[in-house]
Amino acid sequence: MAVGLNDFPSIPEVRGIRMGVAEAGIKKANNKDLVVFELSEGSSVAGVFTQNAFCAAPVKVCQKHLASSSARYLIINTGNANAGTGKSGLDNAFKTCQALSEVVGIPSESILPFSTGVIGEPLPVEKIVNAIPSAIANLSKEDWLSAGLGIMTTDTLPKGSFKTFEFEGKVYTVTGISKGAGMIRPNMATMLGYVFSDIAIEESLLQSILSQATNKSFNRITVDSDTSTNDSCIAVATGKAGNSVVEDRNSPLAQAFINAFTEVMQELAHAIVRDGEGATKFVTVEVAGAASESDATKTAFEIAHSPLVKTALYASDPNWGRILAVVGRAGVEGLDVDTVQLHINGFEIARDGGRSPDYLEEHGQQAMEPEEIHIVVDLGMGESSDTVWTTDFSQEYVTINAEYRT
Amino acid sequence: MAVGLNDFPSIPEVRGIRMGVAEAGIKKANNKDLVVFELSEGSSVAGVFTQNAFCAAPVKVCQKHLASSSARYLIINTGNANAGTGKSGLDNAFKTCQALSEVVGIPSESILPFSTGVIGEPLPVEKIVNAIPSAIANLSKEDWLSAGLGIMTTDTLPKGSFKTFEFEGKVYTVTGISKGAGMIRPNMATMLGYVFSDIAIEESLLQSILSQATNKSFNRITVDSDTSTNDSCIAVATGKAGNSVVEDRNSPLAQAFINAFTEVMQELAHAIVRDGEGATKFVTVEVAGAASESDATKTAFEIAHSPLVKTALYASDPNWGRILAVVGRAGVEGLDVDTVQLHINGFEIARDGGRSPDYLEEHGQQAMEPEEIHIVVDLGMGESSDTVWTTDFSQEYVTINAEYRT
Repeated sequence: MAVGLNDFPSIPEVRGIRMGVAEAGIKKANNKDLVVFELSEGSSVAGVFTQNAFCAAPVKVCQKHLASSSARYLIINTGNANAGTGKSGLDNAFKTCQALSEVVGIPSESILPFSTGVIGEPLPVEKIVNAIPSAIANLSKEDWLSAGLGIMTTDTLPKGSFKTFEFEGKVYTVTGISKGAGMIRPNMATMLGYVFSDIAIEESLLQSILSQATNKSFNRITVDSDTSTNDSCIAVATGKAGNSVVEDRNSPLAQAFINAFTEVMQELAHAIVRDGEGATKFVTVEVAGAASESDATKTAFEIAHSPLVKTALYASDPNWGRILAVVGRAGVEGLDVDTVQLHINGFEIARDGGRSPDYLEEHGQQAMEPEEIHIVVDLGMGESSDTVWTTDFSQEYVTINAEYRT
Repeated sequence: MAVGLNDFPSIPEVRGIRMGVAEAGIKKANNKDLVVFELSEGSSVAGVFTQNAFCAAPVKVCQKHLASSSARYLIINTGNANAGTGKSGLDNAFKTCQALSEVVGIPSESILPFSTGVIGEPLPVEKIVNAIPSAIANLSKEDWLSAGLGIMTTDTLPKGSFKTFEFEGKVYTVTGISKGAGMIRPNMATMLGYVFSDIAIEESLLQSILSQATNKSFNRITVDSDTSTNDSCIAVATGKAGNSVVEDRNSPLAQAFINAFTEVMQELAHAIVRDGEGATKFVTVEVAGAASESDATKTAFEIAHSPLVKTALYASDPNWGRILAVVGRAGVEGLDVDTVQLHINGFEIARDGGRSPDYLEEHGQQAMEPEEIHIVVDLGMGESSDTVWTTDFSQEYVTINAEYRT
């Protein structure tokens, strides 16, 4: 059950982008499981990918094609991750691109493949090849909902976000969809995220904006600490807004775009957490007063990964000693526990190495009750801070992951 | 429900050791929650303790007393960890020692205090003080079962192990008890472990043997990746066997002692895993073929901590792709996924970066079915290896930890 996740928005066209969806039959019957995006010629395309050494075959092919050619199509299947599949997995990823290449008449290198689903099983490439014509036949400009549904695996809801902004009389759109609910601890990108804009922008600048926004969004969420083999996030800028190509990141238009882009990325990242497997809470973990940003990031992730903290959150139990225990083992050099302060949803819980003098059990209970929890740990060591978003941990998480696949 | 955990053994006397147990009323009625060990004069005593910066007040006092004086008593309460309790927590740990000191008439510095239970709540020190006379009144030489029961928190069964060995006509005993089921990822020691022997051995050698054995036992187990604030393991050698004091670790008697001592430590550590919260499997994770031992240790722990691997183990689901995904994100420098091999309970599952050519789904199912699972990952990079022991992850774990305290 997703936590405070809004309905899929009514997303307008992004000029230069079309999408087509089909049923390849990889997932159960009557499920969309193949999505194709068509990008207009001359689009700038940037990508960030999983750092998992066991990265999936499509991730390798995608990186290769992105480096060598101008991307014109994205093709995404769900139900099978084509990861841990060795050489035949690579062959199948190439075959997928080749098949689409023959249908649309553009070089295979201009196609970026993506897969998500079960790891270690052979990709049913014939099913994908057979469904490609149907996906191309129904290409449309506004069927974002079908695309959002078509990339889901254990997600309970499709995830989309868009912003429009005006600059010197022109209107620009930034639109994204994402998927993911488990195996979520992105390292460079989420399971799958796609963000599209009609702005004209230089490709290397788009790449740098994407990398930076990733570190404020997908790289700061975690459901279960498991980094996927297939994480990929792609940004596309078609240039159809008609502006002169943005090359300077400090220009006012670049700044307006960065703001909209980062907001869309954060909304998509938060949507993944809100739909986290078995989630009943949306939890913001903020670590402040750190001597370095890396200390803040590390401590925030350790709290967000702790099964004991997550089960206490699930129970709405102010068992905040578990949070201090994690801070103590997070490996912060020179930590003095007597300077640590803990607030939850605005209530002061702990200071000076122990419970706050004014703490009452009922404060703790009030603090832990809501669906939205904001934990603030102040290490009292410096000025650096970072924020991570996560879920609680319920029996439902175990049930989902004990039953997925079997 | 513990996995293959034997009944508490019938443990004979260790010459020089007596134990007394009482109900202080910290835990629910009719539960032993206070244990005192009396050590004969001249015993060698060694200890290893949690590396958690938020270490509990009794851990600090214990380290101080161990450094400054010859220990004569151990006093252990359950139900409250006296951790995250600031200055008043320290005062309470000192008060506990002082109260026992007055009853038995030895200096307060010769008493080592231990606590385990809920973190962050004030220690009910008066209850402990009031129960001390009763614990001293029933000091006995063989009530190991009551001592094992008296240190339990969420444990379902008491944990004890002993070995005897003969050397040049003398018989030596090594006996231990331990507790722990959750917040188990010891870093230097377990929740609480106590090992006693009647051997005469030099204290610094005993310390070095304890540290080394810890790294082959308690420091290689994990239930849920959360390092406790209270981990402590104490070794006591009373010298009552009558041998001349062992000073050389390479002597035949030292070697015989090290073997028995390490076996007892491993049995106690494994018992904690077998009684892990919600455990239905006992899982051995062996990483071989690593370029360094630290790579092997790190990879083994990452596998042992992965919620997705643990839920697949719970479901007896051969979703082995999740294991490869963890190996890929474990941060092994220079990993070539094409050299990785995976065996589970003797079945070859994966090689050359993908599924083994002879793999059949039924092999995977046979491999994952038993209660005892042995995972072997060969990284194909070198000669180093390490082994870690862990549990699976069930709904029951969440239930226990969502309900513990509330």
